Amino acid sequence: MHWPQRVHVCEVGPRDGFQNEGTFIPTSSKIQIINMLSETGITEIQASSFTHPKAIPQLRDAEEVFAGIERRPGVTYSALVPNERGAERALRAAADKVDVVVSVSRSHSISNTKMEPEAALEAAGRVAALCRAAGVRTSVGLATAFGCPFEGFAATANTVEFARRAIETHGFEEVALADTAGLAGPAMVYDITSSLVERFPRVRFRLHLHDTRRLGLANVVAGMQAGVTEFDSSIAGLGGCPYAPGATGNVATEDLLNLLLLVGAPASADAGAVLACARKVSEVVGHFDSAVLRAGLSASTGP
Amino acid sequence: MHWPQRVHVCEVGPRDGFQNEGTFIPTSSKIQIINMLSETGITEIQASSFTHPKAIPQLRDAEEVFAGIERRPGVTYSALVPNERGAERALRAAADKVDVVVSVSRSHSISNTKMEPEAALEAAGRVAALCRAAGVRTSVGLATAFGCPFEGFAATANTVEFARRAIETHGFEEVALADTAGLAGPAMVYDITSSLVERFPRVRFRLHLHDTRRLGLANVVAGMQAGVTEFDSSIAGLGGCPYAPGATGNVATEDLLNLLLLVGAPASADAGAVLACARKVSEVVGHFDSAVLRAGLSASTGP
Repeated sequence: MHWPQRVHVCEVGPRDGFQNEGTFIPTSSKIQIINMLSETGITEIQASSFTHPKAIPQLRDAEEVFAGIERRPGVTYSALVPNERGAERALRAAADKVDVVVSVSRSHSISNTKMEPEAALEAAGRVAALCRAAGVRTSVGLATAFGCPFEGFAATANTVEFARRAIETHGFEEVALADTAGLAGPAMVYDITSSLVERFPRVRFRLHLHDTRRLGLANVVAGMQAGVTEFDSSIAGLGGCPYAPGATGNVATEDLLNLLLLVGAPASADAGAVLACARKVSEVVGHFDSAVLRAGLSASTGP
Repeated sequence: MHWPQRVHVCEVGPRDGFQNEGTFIPTSSKIQIINMLSETGITEIQASSFTHPKAIPQLRDAEEVFAGIERRPGVTYSALVPNERGAERALRAAADKVDVVVSVSRSHSISNTKMEPEAALEAAGRVAALCRAAGVRTSVGLATAFGCPFEGFAATANTVEFARRAIETHGFEEVALADTAGLAGPAMVYDITSSLVERFPRVRFRLHLHDTRRLGLANVVAGMQAGVTEFDSSIAGLGGCPYAPGATGNVATEDLLNLLLLVGAPASADAGAVLACARKVSEVVGHFDSAVLRAGLSASTGP
């Protein structure tokens, strides 16, 4: 089996995790958590989403969060945006990187954005153009790349072609493949990502995996076998998907780091510091969905 | 990646799962559950353990269970035994197969059996001889093969050599490697099992994995890459280890079957029937630890 020399972990808890919390998390707590995450050695943090405050009230303070955090050198503070208006706000807030998401599956796209996938991809292309003009990095996330909560696996036949268009037509150099509904298995993850990695060797591919069916880390392993070295994860396993019934959180950052330690694939983050941070986050939100937060790191067992 | 043509699932819930339940499960419920499991297409069920009633009061009814179940043709009803006395009881109860367990790690072996690993392996060899004389199949399980709750990973350096002695000195033709404390990662599982599979191509290797750190299915995947096609799992994810602090249940049978469906590695069991059985078991014991019981099979999502 193949284990990468180096893994890039992108922490999405402050966006994907927090947006699923019903109770508003005070802006000062969000800033404190992002600052604490910055101290762990994590080098990319998706800090918030510049969306309409009525769509996701929890993240209505995106501007204040970006203005309030300490920018630690070497850490990329990215923002998710749904459209050009969001991208303009993210650029004004000096986000280091702008992530935009489109759904591969038609029903998920319409349910989420009221747009066909093709129209959504074109809109994402306009976001990318805006960011390029501003000299800011951008990535596109392909939601439901491995299965749709409404259509099942039907839409996954389009994933590779959809990624090709994002890259060749709209100029994206970074593509995240998201298992939005937590349906994926390792064979599918391996097949789709290896086909893309081989075809587009210069594109940065990232996997955004949910742990709905305890396959999150198995799918990380499959991605590694295909040559993927970048993974999203969420501190304390927070997250879910409001449009994916039954979906639980993202792969927990501390569970991912435990795996990376076990396979000797180093990431920049310190697992112990991340675990302390996960404990703090679980206290703030009042829950967690993480195995290592309960059982400890494998390496900490023993004398 | 490599996906097996066929996978053998060994259901250990009635033994490994039930023995961790504090409240006595009525013998009639145990028999009902084993009969229900027999109807799902599962071809091996570890139905109980012939141990001292004071050691595991929950399984003090092993004789009644074996006498009461309907023996479905094609299903192997196995029994775990701690020693020769247990093996004699299992043979009298007409168990189809006798499983014996020894710990690779010294402290786990002494904590569990008050014997050094070498002495425990010799005692296991006597159990095997007894079973061979009676014409009954036997297997040895190597506990803490991938890490010990007391010694961490130190003992795993002995796992391959310990398995070799079980095979060459004591004549075992079936060896289960157990991640008793749920510490294993896929690199270690791959390295140890591929080394054994290559060296002993005629021996049946089985993996007994716990999901303590959400790595159970990732480790199944690693085992498959090494050529392993036999896996223990526990209905509704019941189980744990009384001597492994923080250990949670075995890989849930329904979670394992969801993975097998996703990678196209067929098992004999019907996933829907197993899921119904898991629901019944969770009602009997009042809890479960299984993702698919909560979220459903991946394949059942969609239109």
